[in-house]
Amino acid sequence: MNTIGHIFRLTTFGESHGTAIGGVIDGCPSQLKLDFDFIDKELLRRKTAQSSTASQRKESDRIEWLSGMLDGITLGTPIAFMVRNEDANSADYEALKDVYRPSHADFTYEQKYGLRDWRGGGRASARTTLPIVVAGAIAKQILKEKDIQIVAKVTETGDAEQAQKEGDTVGGIVECRIIGVSAGLGEPMFNKFSAELAHAMFSLPAVKGFEIGDGFALARMKGTEANDTFINKSGKITTLTNHSGGIQGGISNGNDIVFRVAFKPIPSISMPQQTVNRAGETCEITVQGRHDVCALPRALVLVEALAAIVTVDMIFLSLQNLKKESLIKPNHHEEI
Amino acid sequence: MNTIGHIFRLTTFGESHGTAIGGVIDGCPSQLKLDFDFIDKELLRRKTAQSSTASQRKESDRIEWLSGMLDGITLGTPIAFMVRNEDANSADYEALKDVYRPSHADFTYEQKYGLRDWRGGGRASARTTLPIVVAGAIAKQILKEKDIQIVAKVTETGDAEQAQKEGDTVGGIVECRIIGVSAGLGEPMFNKFSAELAHAMFSLPAVKGFEIGDGFALARMKGTEANDTFINKSGKITTLTNHSGGIQGGISNGNDIVFRVAFKPIPSISMPQQTVNRAGETCEITVQGRHDVCALPRALVLVEALAAIVTVDMIFLSLQNLKKESLIKPNHHEEI
Amino acid sequence: MNTIGHIFRLTTFGESHGTAIGGVIDGCPSQLKLDFDFIDKELLRRKTAQSSTASQRKESDRIEWLSGMLDGITLGTPIAFMVRNEDANSADYEALKDVYRPSHADFTYEQKYGLRDWRGGGRASARTTLPIVVAGAIAKQILKEKDIQIVAKVTETGDAEQAQKEGDTVGGIVECRIIGVSAGLGEPMFNKFSAELAHAMFSLPAVKGFEIGDGFALARMKGTEANDTFINKSGKITTLTNHSGGIQGGISNGNDIVFRVAFKPIPSISMPQQTVNRAGETCEITVQGRHDVCALPRALVLVEALAAIVTVDMIFLSLQNLKKESLIKPNHHEEI
Amino acid sequence: MNTIGHIFRLTTFGESHGTAIGGVIDGCPSQLKLDFDFIDKELLRRKTAQSSTASQRKESDRIEWLSGMLDGITLGTPIAFMVRNEDANSADYEALKDVYRPSHADFTYEQKYGLRDWRGGGRASARTTLPIVVAGAIAKQILKEKDIQIVAKVTETGDAEQAQKEGDTVGGIVECRIIGVSAGLGEPMFNKFSAELAHAMFSLPAVKGFEIGDGFALARMKGTEANDTFINKSGKITTLTNHSGGIQGGISNGNDIVFRVAFKPIPSISMPQQTVNRAGETCEITVQGRHDVCALPRALVLVEALAAIVTVDMIFLSLQNLKKESLIKPNHHEEI
Repeated sequence: MNTIGHIFRLTTFGESHGTAIGGVIDGCPSQLKLDFDFIDKELLRRKTAQSSTASQRKESDRIEWLSGMLDGITLGTPIAFMVRNEDANSADYEALKDVYRPSHADFTYEQKYGLRDWRGGGRASARTTLPIVVAGAIAKQILKEKDIQIVAKVTETGDAEQAQKEGDTVGGIVECRIIGVSAGLGEPMFNKFSAELAHAMFSLPAVKGFEIGDGFALARMKGTEANDTFINKSGKITTLTNHSGGIQGGISNGNDIVFRVAFKPIPSISMPQQTVNRAGETCEITVQGRHDVCALPRALVLVEALAAIVTVDMIFLSLQNLKKESLIKPNHHEEI
Repeated sequence: MNTIGHIFRLTTFGESHGTAIGGVIDGCPSQLKLDFDFIDKELLRRKTAQSSTASQRKESDRIEWLSGMLDGITLGTPIAFMVRNEDANSADYEALKDVYRPSHADFTYEQKYGLRDWRGGGRASARTTLPIVVAGAIAKQILKEKDIQIVAKVTETGDAEQAQKEGDTVGGIVECRIIGVSAGLGEPMFNKFSAELAHAMFSLPAVKGFEIGDGFALARMKGTEANDTFINKSGKITTLTNHSGGIQGGISNGNDIVFRVAFKPIPSISMPQQTVNRAGETCEITVQGRHDVCALPRALVLVEALAAIVTVDMIFLSLQNLKKESLIKPNHHEEI
Repeated sequence: MNTIGHIFRLTTFGESHGTAIGGVIDGCPSQLKLDFDFIDKELLRRKTAQSSTASQRKESDRIEWLSGMLDGITLGTPIAFMVRNEDANSADYEALKDVYRPSHADFTYEQKYGLRDWRGGGRASARTTLPIVVAGAIAKQILKEKDIQIVAKVTETGDAEQAQKEGDTVGGIVECRIIGVSAGLGEPMFNKFSAELAHAMFSLPAVKGFEIGDGFALARMKGTEANDTFINKSGKITTLTNHSGGIQGGISNGNDIVFRVAFKPIPSISMPQQTVNRAGETCEITVQGRHDVCALPRALVLVEALAAIVTVDMIFLSLQNLKKESLIKPNHHEEI
Repeated sequence: MNTIGHIFRLTTFGESHGTAIGGVIDGCPSQLKLDFDFIDKELLRRKTAQSSTASQRKESDRIEWLSGMLDGITLGTPIAFMVRNEDANSADYEALKDVYRPSHADFTYEQKYGLRDWRGGGRASARTTLPIVVAGAIAKQILKEKDIQIVAKVTETGDAEQAQKEGDTVGGIVECRIIGVSAGLGEPMFNKFSAELAHAMFSLPAVKGFEIGDGFALARMKGTEANDTFINKSGKITTLTNHSGGIQGGISNGNDIVFRVAFKPIPSISMPQQTVNRAGETCEITVQGRHDVCALPRALVLVEALAAIVTVDMIFLSLQNLKKESLIKPNHHEEI
């Protein structure tokens, strides 16, 4: 259950302080000339997005490509890649071995598996999202050929500088827009485009909410306010507004797909916290190590990456139905 | 792509005015004595929840059980069932044959498939959710044996009575609580318990938002406010608060799982609306037929049903890891 | 686990003497005008193929179409259908309720599920293959548009007339040929075209062997004898021989795909047999009821149907890679 | 489509002369102390099974474990591993770049993907089966705890020594026995234990036939000869004979599961062969490089490995139905 996607699929592996983290991309079309510069840039977005202290681990994002290509051209076979965890200092975490950090996955992993990799958060570490960026960058390349762009931005966040001073952390909201998607993508019942996006976004650590179009605000509107009126704009059927966020009945309507993702604050705060240990005894911990004040800057590229993976998958899932002639051109609303 | 679940799986079929709607449940354990009264009661919850006009279609919810049981005991083989669409008056919809109703799936289905069943909303009709209630009722029976309960309630909704007078519609928010789930359920990476719930809820028509625990509100908290402190309560490890909504790192922690689902207002309003037809010509429509003012009352049983399906599936997916002795008792927070 | 296929998928349900048997076809393209006459003809092939006594159940093969079409045109949504078990005389089987028929699935079902539907073989009855014929007929229609034909024949069988006199049964071998498949279909590692065919054929009752091309005979050849020499035949690359059966490395090579399926004799013989009952006591049974002497005549349409389902699925799975211009025309060997 | 299994799943990657080959095992239970010596021994069986010339590549089977364990104990998270292709001499294959080797996958890969990795057979190389041995060894460890053993042997093969002298190759037949499986494993319709085994075996290069129990010979028997009579042997229900090969109706019956796999001769023969090149021109090739005369010795461990993977998966798939008290002890027939 470490796989996402139906046709274009990513399987990831790795713990934060294990030997390596990485992934296997299956279902990538052959004859794609991979843009390694772009992949590196996307990884850099994730990296430089981190707080300044993060640079201590600068060596660790060098990708080793293991399979699936010849001279940089995809073969159609699985593309495996990995990044070594070169600079893992597990000693930092020794003190946390038998203690459950509040709102981390320490306790739940141990309940599920009977043991956990306590070093650096193990499989639950934010580091394990790196393979998503790689697969997302490849998905974006596929989408680029189809003139589909994906752009995320932070629309809301707490006061990070103040929080850092206090040893606290903040959360926030990321809005993402998929621009240029044709109408007719998404499966109508249990694999709606919206459902697949929601599923994907909840794969990211710290995600606690997802909404599409006007989302929760729609719950407070009346039908007359919420409905998107169809219009004919220069011979193309589109809508006056985009309250629906580009998806109706689970299927894209040619408008931008717009959704928002809520991230809780990072639970690793610098202040001492009360908790219990494995034996059930109350104790106090102070989380050491390198930690961000806010996950959002690095979350942008992750949200985009997952959106790209889902979009490619929705396209590939629709191939047996898509009749090119019946597709309308997508429609980009500058403002909604 | 009309299937939900990995081990406990529901495949649904049917259009609103086709011959029948129904489903196939695969992966239901054998030797379960089905509680048909309970299933009927759940279906009744969906029915009586409808606005008064809905009674016109009263005959249509009689389930025919097609397979998978002997003398009411499950065989372990697929349980198929259907409900005939006895009272379908397609003439009501004739006028909508070539017109796209705003914020419905008419346009997107036609873009995807090249045609659509224009009678009563076809596959996109709310009627197609009926099989979910049936499968959900069976899932609840399985959960009952494990002392797991699922309860949804409307926490926010517009003024339905006023809207009805105006020919308008309202949306709202449903909160659901899964009570009694042991710690350790959910898959850590792409099949987090939260991700599976989000995916399932977005399968319902009109859903536009999903949040777990404090959800979007968490995005505005600091780490110190958002973290759930672990405590030892009479020998059991639990947390002081439940901001996380019972899930950490995608895995249940023994607290109630609490989530909220945002429904947009029903797009079928009685007032005339501007739209375009198939030929791209602007026109006006007035949606006729039986329509609810608010989907929420009937959504309660649907939200519970999908939560039950997901929970059973998460349990079955975890069987190879679960060691009974390592499971802590679940923990029910009366208030959060 | 009652589903076959990845994109073009069939889920079946039903027990021999339950209410109905049927299936749900998901992933069928929209805008296909179903040829109901052809479907009926295929069902008739299965029926008339039975021994003369089978006509007693003549009413039971009338299909009720439940969903997925409008005026006979597929909508792209799930196509559900069923056939009622009108003429089920369970009393015939009452004597077998607590006794395990030799080489039937009575004992294994009971071991797996703790109970079984003892009436007419339940889920293990040959009757449950009927939905395969329906889905296969639709798959054949899809293939016909692509000039792909599937033809099975009996190449070996015991002396049925003699066996009938003796109250005995016979098995045999079916050879099937998929004609007109382009090169390049099939997934190279775990979803080889050959593996998918083998998997599908073993879904049929009584199948005990599968071989592709020269199959087991290849195990006795030398490389020099077994290799298929490539030649250029009027500008098309093909091979001199087809020992490989049209598949190399799991992928079609443009030759006919040729495979053989071994069926054991039907285990329901008229003669008394020794066995044990549920209590473990030795006893004697004589299997009553309508039974064929040989399953092969009716197996032909089943083998073809499954081959058609697999072929459509392999085509749909390959869409993201297939570049039309790179496909060579298939190559039909009149004799091998 | 490079994944096998439903719950216990192996995804493999790698080309023969790429950077590395490897795999990701998902669904392995946690808290398993991996027996690395045993894994190495299994890999050695694959290696020493090769013809003497194979030792030239001795360095290449050193496994690097990338994830999924802590101090040799499985974490329940994906176990990724790889083996570098240290000694790949691609120059040997330069001459084959544009030529299609008879009965290899060169032509079909190129038809499917538009290009191929011509170095050492690429993804179609026998080397890509190495990850199967690793996953199989872990599966065997899981089975060992349940007293299930898997043993394969060569039952038929050509005269390898003579063939080597002639620059020719031979095929053969492997028989495998799964000993100690409880009754009740396997899914009845499309995921029969036999179907899963057939599917798995056809994933191996050069496999052209599969039969279970008496297989093709059953096609020539009468019902009276083929049926396995149930008996009570010291209080346990078993059968007098095992013509069925331990599976009835797709479900294990407690007897040994016995099946046979037919391997064609290795297509890489030393003699010059006629073929065509990419341009469609007739030409002659002589395949250079290290090649076995017979694949069977190394196939033994592969057949066992896949049988182990399938068996573990069938067990895990059955957990929601298995009631321990209803399981009979398996039954080992010394001779059949």
